[in-house]
Amino acid sequence: MEFMYQDLPKIGLLGGGQLGRMLLQAGIDLDFQISCLDPDPEAPCQRLAHEFTQGSFQDFDTVYLFGQSQDLISIEIEHVNIDALEKLASEGKQVYPQPHLLRMIQDKRTQKQFFQQYGFPTADFRLIESREEINQHLDFLPAYQKLGKGGYDGKGVQLIADATQIAEGFDAPGLLEKAVDFEKELAVIVARNIHGEVKAFPAVEMVFHPVQNLVEFLISPAAISEEIEAQAVDIATRLIEEMKMVGLLAVEMFLTKDGQVLINEIAPRPHNSGHQTIRANATSQYEQHLRAIAGLPLGDTSTTVFAGMLNLLGEAGYTGKVKYEGLAEALAIPGVFPFLYGKKITKPFRKMGHVSIIGESREEVEEKANQVKKIIRVIS
Amino acid sequence: MEFMYQDLPKIGLLGGGQLGRMLLQAGIDLDFQISCLDPDPEAPCQRLAHEFTQGSFQDFDTVYLFGQSQDLISIEIEHVNIDALEKLASEGKQVYPQPHLLRMIQDKRTQKQFFQQYGFPTADFRLIESREEINQHLDFLPAYQKLGKGGYDGKGVQLIADATQIAEGFDAPGLLEKAVDFEKELAVIVARNIHGEVKAFPAVEMVFHPVQNLVEFLISPAAISEEIEAQAVDIATRLIEEMKMVGLLAVEMFLTKDGQVLINEIAPRPHNSGHQTIRANATSQYEQHLRAIAGLPLGDTSTTVFAGMLNLLGEAGYTGKVKYEGLAEALAIPGVFPFLYGKKITKPFRKMGHVSIIGESREEVEEKANQVKKIIRVIS
Repeated sequence: MEFMYQDLPKIGLLGGGQLGRMLLQAGIDLDFQISCLDPDPEAPCQRLAHEFTQGSFQDFDTVYLFGQSQDLISIEIEHVNIDALEKLASEGKQVYPQPHLLRMIQDKRTQKQFFQQYGFPTADFRLIESREEINQHLDFLPAYQKLGKGGYDGKGVQLIADATQIAEGFDAPGLLEKAVDFEKELAVIVARNIHGEVKAFPAVEMVFHPVQNLVEFLISPAAISEEIEAQAVDIATRLIEEMKMVGLLAVEMFLTKDGQVLINEIAPRPHNSGHQTIRANATSQYEQHLRAIAGLPLGDTSTTVFAGMLNLLGEAGYTGKVKYEGLAEALAIPGVFPFLYGKKITKPFRKMGHVSIIGESREEVEEKANQVKKIIRVIS
Repeated sequence: MEFMYQDLPKIGLLGGGQLGRMLLQAGIDLDFQISCLDPDPEAPCQRLAHEFTQGSFQDFDTVYLFGQSQDLISIEIEHVNIDALEKLASEGKQVYPQPHLLRMIQDKRTQKQFFQQYGFPTADFRLIESREEINQHLDFLPAYQKLGKGGYDGKGVQLIADATQIAEGFDAPGLLEKAVDFEKELAVIVARNIHGEVKAFPAVEMVFHPVQNLVEFLISPAAISEEIEAQAVDIATRLIEEMKMVGLLAVEMFLTKDGQVLINEIAPRPHNSGHQTIRANATSQYEQHLRAIAGLPLGDTSTTVFAGMLNLLGEAGYTGKVKYEGLAEALAIPGVFPFLYGKKITKPFRKMGHVSIIGESREEVEEKANQVKKIIRVIS
């Protein structure tokens, strides 16, 4: 169990967005050396990365070349070039999460098949190759149509209520998923290191924006029974163990009205549903990801407070150099902690930052969140 | 109370050591743009600063030039060129803490005179200009001789027990201070912003290393009565208000065996006695310093846990490229959070990092601290 300074791996991160930025921030504590690859020359990680490489994380040569100078390659976005990661792994580089798992997760169809194959509870689904094929599943409607690949941040998902809506469907490989009559949406973030140690964060509860389908408000811990909590944590734990994944896995779940916990989808990285862990939990999801991939013991995930998280989205109707209205007023509320991602340009519904909110009760957190929502505006 | 993105000042920080590094880390949340000036090309802030300028913060021209391109100049070390800061302030730059206060604090003699003049309790003292002059104060011995200027991290202080030890005294301007028969050493960190808002952190208790006189172990909150706590916080609050200082003030105090609280000395910046606030308090001292100097509302300083802090000092007998032995083992203990400052070379007793320790009771924190002390070794 001895650990020398020299043993900390030089990490190359595919992606340089806000998740990467918070990973870099957490990595300062143990003096991790983390470089980033991102196509945007003004990505949130640009100034903070050990080295910042401008380039596409979807391009084989770019990823392969970037990985050459690292000891360990990880991700903050899963839509990356897997072939290059496989080649790097075959040549002895550490790649966490493992490339074959990224490949499975990249496509929502193989995700669903994995859940099914290993007996994890998930909503019923049908695979389809095109818009046309929806017609063969009229008996299955109403259902959500999900694109297999490329969906992100609420994009690539839409409800097909009946045959009249098929014309608006995506014309690409994907799946139809039975709409779940759910009471709550939950998320459990779980980590596993190379030694097989697994630790889960307490379940949180998500509230989505009805139009953009982005997490709009999150509350921790979820208001669920101990039994449901145990069930959600058990599913996430068994899933990461079954996958033998090294890294951080965010498991989004539905709690149905009849008390079942179903897996919705998974993300193999720090996740929007874990931002509040920076202020609310003993160890943050970002530190946990670094501990997991670097082979260090996992940190204590417990929390002793109630926490909330609000995304700061660019307001509709504003595109241009960002301004944050009301920040000082929000900072005057005890337990309100805004995080700005350093993006220079705002666009409607672009994720520009978030606000973590700490309180002694759920009601206190909700009340502060409502205040903050009224105070802060992301405009140009 | 409206606050726009553009209003966040571009900050220039004199000093690029570990305190600066943790300021930069905290500044990521609100996307502060902070540049550093430090003579060491491998200073802990070198890679993280917005811009890093290698140069002396004690040289007039260097500081003046560095300050020209900033909106606001602050410090992470008080031994800086004040003349340059005064010139920058006179030309309209914001300089916090204010230069005249840095001048007063730079010299322990003027510090003591300030305490005396404004009626703050402090140990009795005599000003001296040279070693020779100690002979005129034989009636005052035993006493601690303190250098007026240049003392730092336990250097510049020594006990003169009696006339036979005068030959070992410092031959420079300074003071003799009556040794205080104290029960505990306390510290209160207090912040004040330009609007006059003042907030103090709860008092902490320090335990010094008997030889190097560096804080070796710190525990929060201090085990003192509510009355003593109120007295310590009141002294720190009145002091920063009397000074009209903008920024963070660390006030080190003695609790005497007869129940008096005396000011020992002060530092106008984040302080070793506040490292644990990163993990243990709602707002860290680093974030609070940034809020204070940038004119933002101050954050909640409360804590709901017990916390400890251990310095990681270079072990005697080792000089060279640093290695941290036992880090992984220490990370396996819940609530143990090492912070490494990114210094490449270790030397005996050099501050290389610290460990914050969180627990549910003082005993739990002390027990973990004793474990960590045995596990981690900073060698080469």
